[in-house]
Amino acid sequence: MIDTIEQSPLCPIVNPGSIAIFGASNKPTSMGTNQLLSLTALGFEGKIYPVHPKEKEVLGFKAYQSVLDLPEVPDLAVMILPTKAVPQVMAACGQKGIKHAIVVSGGFNEVGGQGKDLEEELKETAKRYGITFLGPNCLGVVNPHHKFNMTFLPFEGKPGFIGLASQSGSLVTQLFGYLDRFGIGFSTGISVGNEANIDIVDGLEYLAACPHTRVIGLYIETIRRGREFMEVARAIAPHKPIVAYYVGGSEAGKRAGFSHTGAMAGPDVLYDGVFRQSGIVRADSITEMFDFCWALGSCVKPAGKRVVIQTHSGGPGAAAADACGREGLVLADFSSETLKKLKPFVPHTGSVNNPVDLTFSRRQEEYFESIPEVLLEEAEADVLMLYCSTPRKAFERGMKAMGIEDAEIGPFVEEIIDKQISLLAGLKESHPKTFVGFSFRNESNRFVRNLSRQGIPVFPSPERAARAVSALVRYNKLMHKLGA
Amino acid sequence: MIDTIEQSPLCPIVNPGSIAIFGASNKPTSMGTNQLLSLTALGFEGKIYPVHPKEKEVLGFKAYQSVLDLPEVPDLAVMILPTKAVPQVMAACGQKGIKHAIVVSGGFNEVGGQGKDLEEELKETAKRYGITFLGPNCLGVVNPHHKFNMTFLPFEGKPGFIGLASQSGSLVTQLFGYLDRFGIGFSTGISVGNEANIDIVDGLEYLAACPHTRVIGLYIETIRRGREFMEVARAIAPHKPIVAYYVGGSEAGKRAGFSHTGAMAGPDVLYDGVFRQSGIVRADSITEMFDFCWALGSCVKPAGKRVVIQTHSGGPGAAAADACGREGLVLADFSSETLKKLKPFVPHTGSVNNPVDLTFSRRQEEYFESIPEVLLEEAEADVLMLYCSTPRKAFERGMKAMGIEDAEIGPFVEEIIDKQISLLAGLKESHPKTFVGFSFRNESNRFVRNLSRQGIPVFPSPERAARAVSALVRYNKLMHKLGA
Repeated sequence: MIDTIEQSPLCPIVNPGSIAIFGASNKPTSMGTNQLLSLTALGFEGKIYPVHPKEKEVLGFKAYQSVLDLPEVPDLAVMILPTKAVPQVMAACGQKGIKHAIVVSGGFNEVGGQGKDLEEELKETAKRYGITFLGPNCLGVVNPHHKFNMTFLPFEGKPGFIGLASQSGSLVTQLFGYLDRFGIGFSTGISVGNEANIDIVDGLEYLAACPHTRVIGLYIETIRRGREFMEVARAIAPHKPIVAYYVGGSEAGKRAGFSHTGAMAGPDVLYDGVFRQSGIVRADSITEMFDFCWALGSCVKPAGKRVVIQTHSGGPGAAAADACGREGLVLADFSSETLKKLKPFVPHTGSVNNPVDLTFSRRQEEYFESIPEVLLEEAEADVLMLYCSTPRKAFERGMKAMGIEDAEIGPFVEEIIDKQISLLAGLKESHPKTFVGFSFRNESNRFVRNLSRQGIPVFPSPERAARAVSALVRYNKLMHKLGA
Repeated sequence: MIDTIEQSPLCPIVNPGSIAIFGASNKPTSMGTNQLLSLTALGFEGKIYPVHPKEKEVLGFKAYQSVLDLPEVPDLAVMILPTKAVPQVMAACGQKGIKHAIVVSGGFNEVGGQGKDLEEELKETAKRYGITFLGPNCLGVVNPHHKFNMTFLPFEGKPGFIGLASQSGSLVTQLFGYLDRFGIGFSTGISVGNEANIDIVDGLEYLAACPHTRVIGLYIETIRRGREFMEVARAIAPHKPIVAYYVGGSEAGKRAGFSHTGAMAGPDVLYDGVFRQSGIVRADSITEMFDFCWALGSCVKPAGKRVVIQTHSGGPGAAAADACGREGLVLADFSSETLKKLKPFVPHTGSVNNPVDLTFSRRQEEYFESIPEVLLEEAEADVLMLYCSTPRKAFERGMKAMGIEDAEIGPFVEEIIDKQISLLAGLKESHPKTFVGFSFRNESNRFVRNLSRQGIPVFPSPERAARAVSALVRYNKLMHKLGA
């Protein structure tokens, strides 16, 4: 195990100061060009050296005919080239003294036949020159904290706390916008491709040492170094939670994984055991992997599995209770003290049961301060789940009916919503307890968007919230078993 | 069973020509006022008569001190009043000759004690005057095809094809925006509340006869008339699919349902049997209920469970394959003819397996026309699942790099996306086969939004798409068992 990222072979690949790029040109449709465009768009501050056989300039950068012509030895070479050209270019990089590379090009092991020979050749060449490399058949890396997006698609959003090591490149590139909608994002995303050299275990180690990473996500089609994987994961998990999605769980997934990266998936039950014994929380889908990362990276770990649900609507409250029940969570029974404290807030049509159902008839501040405070203070409960449905249009309509001028309505509604959020955020600060929201509204709703950005994740359905809470509970159990 | 909506006691409640409303005032925070605001905002074209003890005018409408003063006998009375006032107002409505009512007020059976007595009194009063009523403790109805929104929240979106009968009012009121994001919406939504008179079976019958309703959703906390429910559902399901979400499935859900509407939930396995024998597709969550309604209301029913996945990204394709595998769907094996037809389209780094993985390197038209056409023509497959990730920002960047002027880029990109959609929509028309999309992008993406609006639902994750497809397959099986 490493202690700092500098000890990882991935360090210069994820945080390069200078890059040679092969395959970028002035042809805007080529993949290499797009990777260079992504790089510059995020404002990469290091040196960029395009290597191109014919062009004098590539997207405004001076281009070099050969890597040997570069004025310095760059930290990293990135190759987006026809398959057959790769081993040769790798050799030239070696001659130049380059020690780290990303091979984006596909057509190796994953296609079989001659591709396997080419991958062998690539490995041998790299070994000969002491080059550590990522790929082939990968989509690069993203490290927004370093303004470094070495992938095909433009980065969207902000630097975040989720470290991802993935055997699918799409997960690194195609989910920027998805994560940003929830107000989360990657600390670093690493597409490991065929893992001819650097593999997912190296990715794990790097992310464990990365100070921007609070939680690690793994997309797995196969594990090539089983023993090392388990040892490393077990050492990391108590300090930094790990969530894994294994795609080979079904026969169909297995077949698809094989044709994708040539991965030989094992029986689902085997992987299940590996994850459990490694202290890794298993997710059943990509969506769930990021939900779990969101919860594990944002929330205080619950002491137990007793949940309180606060709602102003019976149906969503009941659905949340049902979802908790299915996930093995239990609804907390309130202490007599809590019941006493709640009594004045609950109208006669509401309920003093759990879910705490307040209907629509009470004052706003109670829903966002007094009541959640009582619930967070309940010693018999470990988690608060809050139903969030702030119907902005209804607010606006009410203000219009009150005679407030049109131009003032927008800012006034926003002020109210922001006040509600600051009350809840204050409670989160003063009460170190697991606190999540759920809603059928999405990030286009100011309340949902901004509450999430205050570290109270608002999941887009009761069952996703319940699943995420159960992942927190499972993490605790796994750590208990590890003796951590 | 009824043949036309006119035979349903719900008909005047869902399609009134004139309304007396009790509880609306000029106080913008009151619930009654908000229901009247919702009604007028959607442009209700019938007569509106507010009844108010003091006001001369309510929100611009002439108000009446007593229902007896109204110039005509309205089709419907809507009561949003303190609990104790309700039986008395119901009697006054009876004296006026009103035959239909919605009682929004809560505080009846669901709170127990005196509430139970009041509900009995309400029922007796209504019976005495021959009044049919919805509620109490409901949130009203919405029928956007009739410009009729008799609920607390403003309607968002367009009239749709999902008929909902719900024991949760929130599901009728709080999901307008949710459904609209997917380009779907209610044909009619009915909040049945405590079902003191009209119940969910009446709702089913009405929606079965409703010409705007293509699929029926049910949110259930309890079924009060079991035998009738099953008979009616069994008669409807072969002609119009029914999807149900039962919230009492877990102990926690059961408790929550009881405190919500006083519903006595039965064992999960019992409800499971009831749904199966009634030909109802069961959903495990609210989200899933609407996903299933979306698929059942939009898609051609599949002949079998053999799926083809088309993708340009390995990870999402593998995840979709895995999700299909978990749902009991199978990946189709291609006929030799299909393999031959696909060969020219698949680059050497892609795969001619299923998922059909095309990577990023090929021409757009192939992904949106030639290839899906081959796949839709495959006789060995029943369903096509298409991965949709049209990275608009990458398109725009590419055009900028090509030297296209900024002002022209937007319209040009939209033209390309619209062309892709029209190609796919054309295929859907010419090939009567189950065809769905999946994506991690949402409705803010033009491609996702507009493809869904063409009747090819794009689900927000591979597993939600796979679950929805499996619901289509389950529906067929259920119909087979019913001998339909």
